[in-house]
Amino acid sequence: MEIKVLHQVMEWNEDVSAGVRDTLRQHKVCLINVMGSPGAGKTSLLTALIERLRAEFAIGVIEGDITGQIDAEKIAALGIPAVQLNTDGACHIEAMSIQHILPQFELDKLDVLFVENIGNLVCPAEFDIGENFRLTVLSIPEGDDKVAKYPLMFTDTDCLALTKCDMLPYFDFDLARVAADYRGVNPEGPLFQLSARTGAGLDELTAHLAGRIRAALG
Amino acid sequence: MEIKVLHQVMEWNEDVSAGVRDTLRQHKVCLINVMGSPGAGKTSLLTALIERLRAEFAIGVIEGDITGQIDAEKIAALGIPAVQLNTDGACHIEAMSIQHILPQFELDKLDVLFVENIGNLVCPAEFDIGENFRLTVLSIPEGDDKVAKYPLMFTDTDCLALTKCDMLPYFDFDLARVAADYRGVNPEGPLFQLSARTGAGLDELTAHLAGRIRAALG
Repeated sequence: MEIKVLHQVMEWNEDVSAGVRDTLRQHKVCLINVMGSPGAGKTSLLTALIERLRAEFAIGVIEGDITGQIDAEKIAALGIPAVQLNTDGACHIEAMSIQHILPQFELDKLDVLFVENIGNLVCPAEFDIGENFRLTVLSIPEGDDKVAKYPLMFTDTDCLALTKCDMLPYFDFDLARVAADYRGVNPEGPLFQLSARTGAGLDELTAHLAGRIRAALG
Repeated sequence: MEIKVLHQVMEWNEDVSAGVRDTLRQHKVCLINVMGSPGAGKTSLLTALIERLRAEFAIGVIEGDITGQIDAEKIAALGIPAVQLNTDGACHIEAMSIQHILPQFELDKLDVLFVENIGNLVCPAEFDIGENFRLTVLSIPEGDDKVAKYPLMFTDTDCLALTKCDMLPYFDFDLARVAADYRGVNPEGPLFQLSARTGAGLDELTAHLAGRIRAALG
């Protein structure tokens, strides 16, 4: 019963995500779907990336959260247009929510729209929200078994960022295991090791994303 | 549309969870639902609690995961009856799965059945699986804004364990903020600070759980 229901929701979501993609193509905006567990460091990474990308691209952010606007306030403090999307309990963002929220932005003035998805290593990966590409975030303290245990999030993504790498000395985290598991489910996907706190690895990820954005904007 | 669907699933779940609760009462088994984010340290905590509780109680474990049996193997290595429950993509455990899996255990020989839920700070809190009580796990590296951002998981729980507290020196984590947010949504809920690695705080949580288990078993 539940599987049938999910299937219906996802078919419906597919139609809407195609509409979102059309709208963004018309306005030449590249949408990046950022996903990962609660506390993986998505907002800190986003803040660091915005600082490095904003000279070249006009950026907007949709901050997804169950409730509250803690993260949207952090982004708005950077002088970046930010809209908080509260799912009121739902564990992921669907394309319908993005469709509703797009008119809040002056799309013709944007190049990039980041969506920070709900902190969740499972459900968000199932829903196409009309993104050009996906960035999955995994933090060192979460442990090196996460690719094996939550494969979809690492299979259906365009890029994996390992965050909080400055914490590697304090955790039993086998980088080779994660890299091997990731190659197993996503042979073409690039992997970046970084720390938003120290800045290590951020230039490499920024360069990669800038290339992807330029390609998407044509 | 989606909300209606969820409501149906949850009403159906309620009937089944009452059945699970009846079965466990007949066999005098106390079910504890352990929930938290991916990588919060649920399995490590469970391992540490089993070591401390097994002298008094006969323990079994249901390990919930999307896929694989990494965690069930860790528990079985302790000589504890463990069954792996794979949800094949689903982001939480429902009572129906527990009902199906109970015959795998010799219930008359058990006092306590731990269920380690899927690593997810959102959805599991919505589903009563027939538990006697709930233990929510939040790790220091996840950050001190999690109670505010994912309130249901902290509201609908009987106990909060802050794990990886040996990492407090390395993270900007405001314990007072978490304690205040938790009191705000769950004024009666006890809070324990611990580290499965160093053993700090485990005796206090063990004593609390033992008291709850004795009360549940009558």
